[in-house]
Amino acid sequence: MEMIKNAINRYVPALVNGKATIPYKGIGKHIPTGRKAAPPIATCAHYPSDGNKLVSSIREALEKCELRSGMVISTHHHFRDGDLVANIVFKEAEKMGVKDLVWFPSASFPCHAPIIELLENGVIHHIEGSLNGPLGDFASRGKMKGTAVLRSHGGRYRAIQDDDIHIDITIIAAPTSDPFGNSNGVEGPSACGLLGFALADSQYADRVIVVTANLVPFPCIPWQIQGNYVDYVVQIDRIGIPEKIVSGTTQITKSPDRLLIAEMTTQFMVESGIVHEGFSIQAGAGGVSLAVIGQLKEYMKEKNIHSRFMRGGSTQYLVNLLEEGYTDYILDGQTFDLDGVRSMRENPRHVWTSPFTSYNYHGKGNFAGMIDATILGATEIDLNYNANVVTHSDGRLLHGIGGWQNCLFGKCVILTVPSFRDRIPIILDEVTTVCGPGDLIDVIVTERGIAINPRREDLLDSLKNTHLPIRTIEDLKAEVEDICGGVPDKPELSDNIIAVVEWVDGTLIDSIKAIND
Amino acid sequence: MEMIKNAINRYVPALVNGKATIPYKGIGKHIPTGRKAAPPIATCAHYPSDGNKLVSSIREALEKCELRSGMVISTHHHFRDGDLVANIVFKEAEKMGVKDLVWFPSASFPCHAPIIELLENGVIHHIEGSLNGPLGDFASRGKMKGTAVLRSHGGRYRAIQDDDIHIDITIIAAPTSDPFGNSNGVEGPSACGLLGFALADSQYADRVIVVTANLVPFPCIPWQIQGNYVDYVVQIDRIGIPEKIVSGTTQITKSPDRLLIAEMTTQFMVESGIVHEGFSIQAGAGGVSLAVIGQLKEYMKEKNIHSRFMRGGSTQYLVNLLEEGYTDYILDGQTFDLDGVRSMRENPRHVWTSPFTSYNYHGKGNFAGMIDATILGATEIDLNYNANVVTHSDGRLLHGIGGWQNCLFGKCVILTVPSFRDRIPIILDEVTTVCGPGDLIDVIVTERGIAINPRREDLLDSLKNTHLPIRTIEDLKAEVEDICGGVPDKPELSDNIIAVVEWVDGTLIDSIKAIND
Repeated sequence: MEMIKNAINRYVPALVNGKATIPYKGIGKHIPTGRKAAPPIATCAHYPSDGNKLVSSIREALEKCELRSGMVISTHHHFRDGDLVANIVFKEAEKMGVKDLVWFPSASFPCHAPIIELLENGVIHHIEGSLNGPLGDFASRGKMKGTAVLRSHGGRYRAIQDDDIHIDITIIAAPTSDPFGNSNGVEGPSACGLLGFALADSQYADRVIVVTANLVPFPCIPWQIQGNYVDYVVQIDRIGIPEKIVSGTTQITKSPDRLLIAEMTTQFMVESGIVHEGFSIQAGAGGVSLAVIGQLKEYMKEKNIHSRFMRGGSTQYLVNLLEEGYTDYILDGQTFDLDGVRSMRENPRHVWTSPFTSYNYHGKGNFAGMIDATILGATEIDLNYNANVVTHSDGRLLHGIGGWQNCLFGKCVILTVPSFRDRIPIILDEVTTVCGPGDLIDVIVTERGIAINPRREDLLDSLKNTHLPIRTIEDLKAEVEDICGGVPDKPELSDNIIAVVEWVDGTLIDSIKAIND
Repeated sequence: MEMIKNAINRYVPALVNGKATIPYKGIGKHIPTGRKAAPPIATCAHYPSDGNKLVSSIREALEKCELRSGMVISTHHHFRDGDLVANIVFKEAEKMGVKDLVWFPSASFPCHAPIIELLENGVIHHIEGSLNGPLGDFASRGKMKGTAVLRSHGGRYRAIQDDDIHIDITIIAAPTSDPFGNSNGVEGPSACGLLGFALADSQYADRVIVVTANLVPFPCIPWQIQGNYVDYVVQIDRIGIPEKIVSGTTQITKSPDRLLIAEMTTQFMVESGIVHEGFSIQAGAGGVSLAVIGQLKEYMKEKNIHSRFMRGGSTQYLVNLLEEGYTDYILDGQTFDLDGVRSMRENPRHVWTSPFTSYNYHGKGNFAGMIDATILGATEIDLNYNANVVTHSDGRLLHGIGGWQNCLFGKCVILTVPSFRDRIPIILDEVTTVCGPGDLIDVIVTERGIAINPRREDLLDSLKNTHLPIRTIEDLKAEVEDICGGVPDKPELSDNIIAVVEWVDGTLIDSIKAIND
């Protein structure tokens, strides 16, 4: 396989799944010249005039969509680890005798472990998309045909919009739908919040199937997915397991180390002036982030400061800020608990967004750059502030990118990380996989101190006279290596490329090798 | 000019403005084979990372969009006869010295009379779009270079989507916007309701300028136009005259003849079973339609029937039905009075729609076919139930098509018309211009009785034993001719084609000749 060195000195394959690639060129350096994907023009003459697109089963819908071997089939992770639909669809495809499908999920979860059997027996050729847990482990052992392409949420929208990937059939699991295909995620017994990850698929796929467990008479309001893009609607008993829709990590951390990280993060934002009247923040649903939100609330109350908007993933903590008037709006891409779902359903100031509005780098701007501070995690960070979120230090691919790359365009990007995990330091000479360039990462907060990217002289200047434990990244690294017993061994990896990591603009920022199993 | 006879026996030009045409083939007979328009791929690298797209003036925005001679420039009629922006834009274009622009409005109004000077001096070559009032009169006298192309609201969306027309620059007048370009019509001192007529333009135009009189900090909620499509935002003092935003015809008719038409229409809908639990209706904002709505309300109250949804153009009468629980939803494309605007702003059950959701014939279905009854007007009707809405019987082009053609796909299409106007009969052997085929028109209600299209045997059967004054269209015609003194003279028209009428699928259903001036 021909490998090319990109602008961040990582080697990426010249061809992925038979298609030529573009190596990463630097932030904003790759200027697209093409035109967007152009779906076939449909006509109402081919659709029922009374708007009733119901068919009796997923099988019938797949047959009407003329499912064939080799097609690209997409599904979405609005139910996260509680999704039931993707497994049903691919089991049905197996029964229909098709082979070599490409599964293009917005993310996969441990609940999708049954897909491994279909990867092994040839029903699915490979997966293009985030590989969390068992599927990532399977791929890491070199067992998947084809190469996984890891994209951020915004990168996935972009890839569809730009026609990098053409979806033959998309299956959208919708908590509520009408027979025309108008659908939403805020109503019904399996309400999960919103359906934004399926937006591009609905707009650009040749065929669009909505699968719902809660059919209502037209019109289904609100329509987060527009029925005018939908071919068929199927009603089944269950599409998701509600108790698994909620992410497991939506409680404030109780770990003293992590609470310390949260406190330093909050202090950093206060001292650096980020927390000013009308500020905005994106924190996510991790335990540290939620602790920061709680601490921020106290500060805002004390200083009578309010925020213009907060970006979700929403949780009860963000909803509480909205309901008590600490922020004008939540702009939300994904609800992480049932308070989030309720708030989005009831409160017009809890606004649903999409990877198009928030994250698509090939739009006329997006929301990511307007956020004063984004708080993110990482599995590894190097001395140039490059960071990894997909692989562990043993080389295994275990996580998706999510919105992480997209959020790096925030005005101040803060990575909150423990300085080591399982006695493996987080700060390394070189990360296993570069997911985001250090040019965009401003601050690292660990329980042992704060490192500020030297590029951010403004921050270093403004914090000079504070009591914040600001240290160089080299200094932090050395201390942690002392504790952990030196520089960790690099993982032994094969030469077999099992996945590539796309940057937000479609260029390849890194590749991932199989582990030596 | 080579003329072709189409499937409804009307002659249409083989070429319009240098482009080959497709003659009308019949309902649902033209099957498109192409792909949708594919706009150039943008990149965030070319837009300000803080999302601030403000420029100081319309002139600056036009310069940055590289306005050049021959470009297609679009604007919209959300302010109806109160629009101030189109005139400003084209005056600025004149100052910039460009020529031969094509103006592609969603509709033009008498307030746009100053455009005539620019048509005469060559700044604008021709107008593609509805020509109401003075501009229609100007075109009818053969004075406009190029040929007007008249499209319905849905047809205009379709034409943009299908790349029949490529918009170089669109200028969207928005009552409220943020610096990123997120915009809506429900907030601000010049609130007009919604911005749906600009949706396709925002999605497909090369360059998108938002002009607002009410700039708010990001995020502007709701975003009816998404800033991710917007290039520049301009703030000016006034974009529309609020008192002219409201249509002049939003009161219940006081004319005894028209009240009689309304009563017969209501009775027809009741007796034919259209008014059943969960029914839907689209009536518009004319005086007869509003009287029907008032009468329907009384009937619904008496019989304890409620409607699933009502389609706007919304007015106080529709809003009243929503607020008193007679209907679950208003699905609204255009607010016709300030009660409509208020309701849309405040009530999540007053839902904004767009020509895409409601009317686009080249989608995977649209809303128009789901409506139990649509009540429309006409200037002329022939014995085959073909109808005209754009020209008067003197041949002058004075009206746009609006959503009229799109609404013909309702389950029961009722034209409410006086039997004559100014002693000119409405029912003719042949209409001046065919805008809609009789195949889709079910019922004509005049003050002298009701004619039912013989095609609708079901309606004729079910109404056999009622007291409704059901007559043949021939019988009605003869009576009116007696009153008016015989068959009216046909207008003397030149051979000069000044406009063509597109059907919803992009084929040409008729052409319009200049009058002999």
